[in-house]
Amino acid sequence: MAAKPNGQIAKVLDGPMNPMVTPLLTDLYQFTMAYGYWKAGKHNERAVFDLYFRKNPFGGEYTVFAGLEECIKFIANFKLAEDEIDFVRESLSSSCEDGFFDYLRGVDCCDVEVYAVQEGSVVFPKVPLLRVEGPIAVVQLLETPFLNLTNYASLVATNAARHRFVAGESKMLLEFGLRRAQGPDGGIGASRYCYMGGFHATSNVAAGKLFGIPLRGTHSHAFVSSFMSPDEIVDKSLHSSDKRTTCEDFVSLVQTWLNKIQFGETNQSELAAFTSYGLAFPDNFLALVDTYDVMRSGIPNFCAVALALNDLGYKAAGIRLDSGDLAYLSSEARKIFCIIEKDFGVPGFGKMVITASNDLNEETLDALNKQGHEVDAFGIGTYVVTCYAQAALGCVFKLVEINNQPRTKLSEDVTKVSIPCKNGRHNDWGK
Amino acid sequence: MAAKPNGQIAKVLDGPMNPMVTPLLTDLYQFTMAYGYWKAGKHNERAVFDLYFRKNPFGGEYTVFAGLEECIKFIANFKLAEDEIDFVRESLSSSCEDGFFDYLRGVDCCDVEVYAVQEGSVVFPKVPLLRVEGPIAVVQLLETPFLNLTNYASLVATNAARHRFVAGESKMLLEFGLRRAQGPDGGIGASRYCYMGGFHATSNVAAGKLFGIPLRGTHSHAFVSSFMSPDEIVDKSLHSSDKRTTCEDFVSLVQTWLNKIQFGETNQSELAAFTSYGLAFPDNFLALVDTYDVMRSGIPNFCAVALALNDLGYKAAGIRLDSGDLAYLSSEARKIFCIIEKDFGVPGFGKMVITASNDLNEETLDALNKQGHEVDAFGIGTYVVTCYAQAALGCVFKLVEINNQPRTKLSEDVTKVSIPCKNGRHNDWGK
Repeated sequence: MAAKPNGQIAKVLDGPMNPMVTPLLTDLYQFTMAYGYWKAGKHNERAVFDLYFRKNPFGGEYTVFAGLEECIKFIANFKLAEDEIDFVRESLSSSCEDGFFDYLRGVDCCDVEVYAVQEGSVVFPKVPLLRVEGPIAVVQLLETPFLNLTNYASLVATNAARHRFVAGESKMLLEFGLRRAQGPDGGIGASRYCYMGGFHATSNVAAGKLFGIPLRGTHSHAFVSSFMSPDEIVDKSLHSSDKRTTCEDFVSLVQTWLNKIQFGETNQSELAAFTSYGLAFPDNFLALVDTYDVMRSGIPNFCAVALALNDLGYKAAGIRLDSGDLAYLSSEARKIFCIIEKDFGVPGFGKMVITASNDLNEETLDALNKQGHEVDAFGIGTYVVTCYAQAALGCVFKLVEINNQPRTKLSEDVTKVSIPCKNGRHNDWGK
Repeated sequence: MAAKPNGQIAKVLDGPMNPMVTPLLTDLYQFTMAYGYWKAGKHNERAVFDLYFRKNPFGGEYTVFAGLEECIKFIANFKLAEDEIDFVRESLSSSCEDGFFDYLRGVDCCDVEVYAVQEGSVVFPKVPLLRVEGPIAVVQLLETPFLNLTNYASLVATNAARHRFVAGESKMLLEFGLRRAQGPDGGIGASRYCYMGGFHATSNVAAGKLFGIPLRGTHSHAFVSSFMSPDEIVDKSLHSSDKRTTCEDFVSLVQTWLNKIQFGETNQSELAAFTSYGLAFPDNFLALVDTYDVMRSGIPNFCAVALALNDLGYKAAGIRLDSGDLAYLSSEARKIFCIIEKDFGVPGFGKMVITASNDLNEETLDALNKQGHEVDAFGIGTYVVTCYAQAALGCVFKLVEINNQPRTKLSEDVTKVSIPCKNGRHNDWGK
């Protein structure tokens, strides 16, 4: 892909997702250098920079490149506002000449060319993901935003793809990480790039609205413990799925089913919560069953509501487990669902979706696979969105050419030295 | 601190720093639950939720609480826009009743009370950092944004404070993490909360503008390698510091000094870059000296420019080392600066600021301390902003009371069970 933004493109492309991504979202030294280049009369010299990383993350063998669209939107709209120029002036030395700020006023990315591998591609170390060519002072100002917009995006897309691989193709992956993400944008970016990396849905409503990612979510433990007993349910009536009949006392119907399937007591707070939730979402009833005791309370309470809904022509969606031995509990739950399907003649009840959550990551998914489990969907939060196993990718942005002369840096760390080579390696770009 | 936002406060308080922090920046299940509460007629029941974490991060003994101001700004402006309500309606089941969306239209946080420990306080596990009281459906909608706004903020403030402690009181700490942060907001938040945790400055210009954090930054390796030789410097003149005299050929003056202090060849690209940078920033000359060879090229080139500037009444700021053995190189650099101070009678030259960077973290700072070093300022990026050693804090938001009744959750994981206790433990709040 090659993109050369010009006035026309700038008019049709929106800016980056986050309005805080402005030309000031950069390191101060990009502006001091821009002044240095300008003062030396070098600011329009044609420079080529490569953006790449040195090592695949997570001890793995590949990386998924992401963040390109945001970079393109950023440069298509690159323009310093007057208050931004004023702030740069205050931040630089008072000895800086006025002419530089006039120059900044006119800066845009019309003369910048970006060559890149496609977003979502599998990429490898030391191979440029982006090549940026243009007037050196301008391209330098892009360094930090480009790195910020690609480093985390690529890391989390890679992390998601790895989780996808371990979970297996048949499993649903749900991203639940907003609360633990590194800031609002960490959360929104995670949802977007997890979806790119192979997740099916997110809990993040803002990301759903911004990117059209499917949303998932039902209720939490607080919902369960906020109820006291089924006595507090006032409106007990529920229309059947086909609207032809009405069950006037759904609470009693649930109780009848509970008596049929269970001999001991279940938690009444939980029973009330599930019944209420069934009344609110009869066509999408999915219950979190581990607030008290999964086997003695959560599963029977869930089944009672699901069977009562079934009487009215609704099909329950499933359960979520958020603690305990997920392999064991999912298998036991599956057994019970299958017994109910058989004993009460409810087709499909055995195939109820079992979702598991609770600090899942690659290792716990792998352990679950080894133990055997009956989980259909995994809700993954902290580990996938913060990239807990390795919190940064480490992309760099290196000058490889100026005025058609290759340039290199000889570092004290030998591993950091790379040989610039603009042509030859990636001549399939742009095709 | 206690804050009870009302109409008046809402008018004077700005919204959160990031305009993407809206009521939709939450998990879908907060809306499904809100509907469940509304449908059950429970939405206005008075609930109390506690926000706390279970374990100090980084294997440490304390945490620094941060993010409160953003939470308060968020609730002071909490209001669902019409397009947001439309999106929630699309995202929930089509069977949800219209009355709920009318209810959402009127929702604000006038009836929500927030009690919190002061932002910047040292806090400990299982002690509530925030207590939120209000109508259960509304408080539930705040759960995810409050967690998102405090989890990372507290983690990075703690991380910064730990780096501060290891570096020692006399050292400057500079946050250079924007390029490696988890998204734009991860970068801006990191700058803000590193400053709260004890850093002195940031390289992030946007954070400098938003929060008044001092900015630091000079030039990168690219600036050095973009120059070829001093011959390309066109404008060689420099006024003296007092503007009384002008040196017409600063390049020759630098060369004269270089001949006095150095017997071998230095890198001409680097010499040109430093000379240009000195011409651009004569009163704040700080050079990155490791692009080629620190001892044989970087330091002599730096000293030549610094001494030439000294002739014109300017005081150079110092050097930055970004690779190699920082303890050794800083000590050697210091020796040379001291020799120059003595041999050429330049008072203060030995006290030149030495800044070190290159993937620094608590461990490398500690190792440098043990080896002995002459670094005055540390530039820390990836490790402090991504909280690499532990990328998430894990704050939770638990229902502890509803309608004055304590509520608890009995989890399959015993470590997750907490005993609700609204009164008694923190009766000093709000004083």
